[in-house]
Amino acid sequence: MTLKSTEIYIELAEQLSQRLAETAVERDRQGGTAIREREWIRESGLLKLLIPQKNGGHGETWITVLKIVRRLAEVDSSVAHLFGFHHLNLISPHIYGDQGQKEFYYTETARHNWFWGNAFNPSVSDVKAMRQDNGFIINGTKGFCSGASDSDILIVSAEREDGGTMFKAVIPTNRKGILIHNDWDSFGQRQTDSGRVTFNQVEVEEGELLLKHDPQNYFMKLRGTLPKLILGHLYMGLAEGAFKEVKKYTNSLSRMWHASGTRAAEDPYNLRHFGDYWVQLTAAKLLSDRAAERFQDAWDMEADLQEGQYGETVEAILTANAMATKVGLEISSRMFEVMEARSTASQYGFDRYWRNLRTHTLHDPYDYKLKELGHWALNGYFKADARLDK
Amino acid sequence: MTLKSTEIYIELAEQLSQRLAETAVERDRQGGTAIREREWIRESGLLKLLIPQKNGGHGETWITVLKIVRRLAEVDSSVAHLFGFHHLNLISPHIYGDQGQKEFYYTETARHNWFWGNAFNPSVSDVKAMRQDNGFIINGTKGFCSGASDSDILIVSAEREDGGTMFKAVIPTNRKGILIHNDWDSFGQRQTDSGRVTFNQVEVEEGELLLKHDPQNYFMKLRGTLPKLILGHLYMGLAEGAFKEVKKYTNSLSRMWHASGTRAAEDPYNLRHFGDYWVQLTAAKLLSDRAAERFQDAWDMEADLQEGQYGETVEAILTANAMATKVGLEISSRMFEVMEARSTASQYGFDRYWRNLRTHTLHDPYDYKLKELGHWALNGYFKADARLDK
Amino acid sequence: MTLKSTEIYIELAEQLSQRLAETAVERDRQGGTAIREREWIRESGLLKLLIPQKNGGHGETWITVLKIVRRLAEVDSSVAHLFGFHHLNLISPHIYGDQGQKEFYYTETARHNWFWGNAFNPSVSDVKAMRQDNGFIINGTKGFCSGASDSDILIVSAEREDGGTMFKAVIPTNRKGILIHNDWDSFGQRQTDSGRVTFNQVEVEEGELLLKHDPQNYFMKLRGTLPKLILGHLYMGLAEGAFKEVKKYTNSLSRMWHASGTRAAEDPYNLRHFGDYWVQLTAAKLLSDRAAERFQDAWDMEADLQEGQYGETVEAILTANAMATKVGLEISSRMFEVMEARSTASQYGFDRYWRNLRTHTLHDPYDYKLKELGHWALNGYFKADARLDK
Amino acid sequence: MTLKSTEIYIELAEQLSQRLAETAVERDRQGGTAIREREWIRESGLLKLLIPQKNGGHGETWITVLKIVRRLAEVDSSVAHLFGFHHLNLISPHIYGDQGQKEFYYTETARHNWFWGNAFNPSVSDVKAMRQDNGFIINGTKGFCSGASDSDILIVSAEREDGGTMFKAVIPTNRKGILIHNDWDSFGQRQTDSGRVTFNQVEVEEGELLLKHDPQNYFMKLRGTLPKLILGHLYMGLAEGAFKEVKKYTNSLSRMWHASGTRAAEDPYNLRHFGDYWVQLTAAKLLSDRAAERFQDAWDMEADLQEGQYGETVEAILTANAMATKVGLEISSRMFEVMEARSTASQYGFDRYWRNLRTHTLHDPYDYKLKELGHWALNGYFKADARLDK
Repeated sequence: MTLKSTEIYIELAEQLSQRLAETAVERDRQGGTAIREREWIRESGLLKLLIPQKNGGHGETWITVLKIVRRLAEVDSSVAHLFGFHHLNLISPHIYGDQGQKEFYYTETARHNWFWGNAFNPSVSDVKAMRQDNGFIINGTKGFCSGASDSDILIVSAEREDGGTMFKAVIPTNRKGILIHNDWDSFGQRQTDSGRVTFNQVEVEEGELLLKHDPQNYFMKLRGTLPKLILGHLYMGLAEGAFKEVKKYTNSLSRMWHASGTRAAEDPYNLRHFGDYWVQLTAAKLLSDRAAERFQDAWDMEADLQEGQYGETVEAILTANAMATKVGLEISSRMFEVMEARSTASQYGFDRYWRNLRTHTLHDPYDYKLKELGHWALNGYFKADARLDK
Repeated sequence: MTLKSTEIYIELAEQLSQRLAETAVERDRQGGTAIREREWIRESGLLKLLIPQKNGGHGETWITVLKIVRRLAEVDSSVAHLFGFHHLNLISPHIYGDQGQKEFYYTETARHNWFWGNAFNPSVSDVKAMRQDNGFIINGTKGFCSGASDSDILIVSAEREDGGTMFKAVIPTNRKGILIHNDWDSFGQRQTDSGRVTFNQVEVEEGELLLKHDPQNYFMKLRGTLPKLILGHLYMGLAEGAFKEVKKYTNSLSRMWHASGTRAAEDPYNLRHFGDYWVQLTAAKLLSDRAAERFQDAWDMEADLQEGQYGETVEAILTANAMATKVGLEISSRMFEVMEARSTASQYGFDRYWRNLRTHTLHDPYDYKLKELGHWALNGYFKADARLDK
Repeated sequence: MTLKSTEIYIELAEQLSQRLAETAVERDRQGGTAIREREWIRESGLLKLLIPQKNGGHGETWITVLKIVRRLAEVDSSVAHLFGFHHLNLISPHIYGDQGQKEFYYTETARHNWFWGNAFNPSVSDVKAMRQDNGFIINGTKGFCSGASDSDILIVSAEREDGGTMFKAVIPTNRKGILIHNDWDSFGQRQTDSGRVTFNQVEVEEGELLLKHDPQNYFMKLRGTLPKLILGHLYMGLAEGAFKEVKKYTNSLSRMWHASGTRAAEDPYNLRHFGDYWVQLTAAKLLSDRAAERFQDAWDMEADLQEGQYGETVEAILTANAMATKVGLEISSRMFEVMEARSTASQYGFDRYWRNLRTHTLHDPYDYKLKELGHWALNGYFKADARLDK
Repeated sequence: MTLKSTEIYIELAEQLSQRLAETAVERDRQGGTAIREREWIRESGLLKLLIPQKNGGHGETWITVLKIVRRLAEVDSSVAHLFGFHHLNLISPHIYGDQGQKEFYYTETARHNWFWGNAFNPSVSDVKAMRQDNGFIINGTKGFCSGASDSDILIVSAEREDGGTMFKAVIPTNRKGILIHNDWDSFGQRQTDSGRVTFNQVEVEEGELLLKHDPQNYFMKLRGTLPKLILGHLYMGLAEGAFKEVKKYTNSLSRMWHASGTRAAEDPYNLRHFGDYWVQLTAAKLLSDRAAERFQDAWDMEADLQEGQYGETVEAILTANAMATKVGLEISSRMFEVMEARSTASQYGFDRYWRNLRTHTLHDPYDYKLKELGHWALNGYFKADARLDK
């Protein structure tokens, strides 16, 4: 039965993907919030994919979630990002909260079909949290708040004015004092709403705080690896989407280059390019699958997760992410060498693959990703990222 | 005195470049015709740069023209294209016409400050020319007519219905029956107006025909190499522009990556990237200079140009063009690895370097360019491009 | 029980590998036939690894064979080649012979512990087979006869003077008239004895002929894919061997570069190189495993193998081979950038990784391998290699 | 007249190169000292190429020296190294000595046709110099003493036991107590005799000391850049030599690949490879020429050399060296993709191009070379290499 239901969700994602494709080029041009498309996702029921069945969810695994991220990213990597990060945000109480919060947020999310957004990125922020009688008051502005617009729930981080560990909380997006600027305007990932959010005397109640803190807990460390896992699959989807487009174009629209003497789909250079794309993509896919499987195994260990397995999970995630970055950037830029000048027409929107990949792959530098992996390859362990254990 | 005047024109281009830079990002977004900027070029007097002094021009060389193309392309490769191809179009009577036509068009262009556009690309066209009493009538539609909008003069090619060599003519852009569609909409080179032009019973007089035809004339063959020479310099300018931007950003805006432990301008990976850009750019610049010099030498030979020197000129042009293609695409995509996520903000417009390069480098495939050079490297001569000698 | 025995063979290979390592650098210098090492392989019992248990063999799969090829190639890719191709030769009666020949050669090989060599390469040959009363007489010389020296049995191909399909036979290496030249002298794979074999009036009996011929039989086509599968694993082993060496050297012998300011194992560039090696190697390993598994699945289908599964098997083999070629060449050349000038000392023999890879990867051109894969990627099927179905 | 004589020396080098080519493959196999070939160089008179005419030399420039290094390296990069570094050693008194020493060593070298060797590398050494009444006593062993064997004069560095600046001296190679080990045994540059030299109570007289020391003197700093300039030209020669070989092989010996359908010299992939080699090589050549010219200009400035011109000279040298490293390694490894399996036969010795390049390019890491250039590109100056100003 599980297998059967997984197939149903994949099929749902397939249909969603086809609907998104119809307007993806146009929406890339417009930017802004994908209100209608977010609603489609709500309606699909896929927001509760990962929530345990006992809490009213579908009880699926991260493997299914990531497959869907990949499929959506083939045509619309902004929506794929919102969808993937919804799950990242959603499991925060499971990681950082107590047992009651975990159950509560899973159950309420399933019941109300909540879409989670974030104001959590610690690196672009001046948000401060100040103790008061019955909780905290937060003030300040945070950047890169992907998915905050049109969300129901926000996961928020801040610096505590009394020192101590990083302040983390879950609050309704419509809480008084929250201003979402809707000011995201980059050349890629244009509908991710990754703009700023300002907090003006926003009250946070005691029960909304996520207080678990244990730098030795490897399950908690998994939270920090999830963005790289999700984004690795997103890059993978972009690479596969670019490949499908160039294949389709070559088989239908490409004209023979006068010096080639043969039609585009038989041209020796074109065939060699496709062979190269194929090898790279296939390698990246295997690495992505391996990362998803290892992560799910580690996730299932919960508190029993040990350093060794954690390390192998991080290795699999970084390796897949690095490969997808490289392959994706290469295919999305070089795909045009197989097509011709007319393929740059705005109607096709083929440049969005490169723009989306280029934008997203900057969030953690490729060089440093390889450096971490090199440390693993030489010394067999990862250096802790102190930022994430505060 | 020549040296002094050359410096004046370079300085004029420098000023023009700075004015173009102010609105380049905004105009890239809008697309359409750069009416005001074309007017600035007219006012600068640079349209007659190449015209001999005896015809009222500045008597400069292609070397000066190409330096200016490069400088303009650093900030605005659409305007650089219009400027470069104006000269390509302008010398067509010199190549394909008789002595009187050459003198006439040089003199009149200098006198009226004409801006030349083209409807000349033979590969995207169904334009037919039909003989009538006193000249020809042309009908049909042609694509990739860069610079036709807001031009004063058009160079036109067509297929003759009575067979024979390719029909070539020079006509005023406002000739009755010419419709410029203004329908260029690609993701790069957005203000080159490279859209379609339709000819509806357009009359061409005898004196407007360019009739010289001599497949053995190496000077005439030079015409076919000029687009690659001009575009090679345009790619070079784009690469240099991208380099200047990433250098400026790194020295002013870049923030330290938390795992780096040192500011962006001292980060070991960033420095290595800059070193790599430097080597590639310097190599490409030397090749560009060599191509410009060899071309000018060949141009000065006029009818005395022989096969050997012609071959070496083509070699220099293709080598420079291939290197600038490779270096430009690499820097314009990889420049972001040195910057960070915030560098993708639309206000900077940094993605336009890649978009402009990617769009323009498709007009003749990189693989086939290398194939031609390989033939030269192995066998010491180039195969003729039969299309161009019709 | 099967799992347990597989582990025993892997462990045997591990021990063999360690013994080979002791003299690998010295034997690489000497070239010639690895008489003693071939004897070690005979003694290990691994020559009958693939032979069914009912025929007296170990009944292992290709997956085990290929794992051992990979492990041996880490230290000695010549011996790994001889070992891998022994199995390729050994299964020829299974493919090209009748049921009796298959049983006979499996059983006799297991009983006598035969080492199989080849004189089979169709591309470097002038060997002719002439019908006579009771079989054939063959004459001529063939090149690239890897493993013929010191073998017990030879698989031979020739051109039939009466036309018809390619002549194939199995004969004892000591058959009268066979001269093994021992003239292999390349800069890589120096102990593969891939030199010439001359046939001077060599008699072949009727029962030694392999006569099955069926161009539509996909199981038979598998024979032509095996060399690429085995070599792909051999390249993989070379890449892994090079990686182990550079890792060991960096952790023990490397000195700090004066401008680095940190020891070699912490140098940022070194770490990044290792990270890059890791990503590439891990990707190539997954592709190799996938190829081995798909091949075994196809092999198990025997006569039931259909075009679809055959195509996917070829795809997996070519993809793995192409990736291992690229990764192996890159690591074996770039590994020195992490080490320093002293690592080029002859005593280490580190250059043999590149030399061995470079030599072996030329047998079928990388460009054409990608071209075939490109055809698959675009059109979904492979073009038949007519040479192999003669 | 100068031009004419330059041509004579180039022609001499051409003849020398052809004689070296006859045995280069064989001598690469043997290693050891190229006694006979060193004698040919002595006989050619080219050892005094750079010595001013007033001192009895030929009065040529570094440009000529470097051209000859490049030409010799095309066939024999060991001899090219000995030849190039002879000049490096020879000018040491000019740099580090007083006016009298400069004149003396130029004159005596021209008169006796001395071949200079070195025991100067500061990084692999435990050589100590101890003050005594009338000079110094040196003891210890130094590595990488290229060209010491069969030399007439040695330039020596050591650490002074009384502290102070680095000890530098010029002594006859046959001075009592000097033991040349002849123990160089690397996989590349096999006849450079870059082994160890042991000093056992070796006396150095006052007049043999090179005592000039001025960390602010940019002319003196030029000495430290010369090895990179010479080696850059040596890599260039290796790259050009590899290119000539693959071109010759393709035009004469290459057989058609069965799937190509056309002969090797018309194969589309081969032609593309040649085109790529051509672009890379041509770029590297222009950079090499520029480096040689800039260095000669700086050399001519002597004590008037200022920081600005010094920096531009270093930039030109590093850029040329980095490009030649990259291009040389790429062509010498990839050249085999155009040839076929038979090109790996030992008789051709084609692998020596990669082995020689690989060995030599490790002496200063490529990554750090790019890092230095990156610093220049971003900040416009080079960081001093403190090692060289001691």
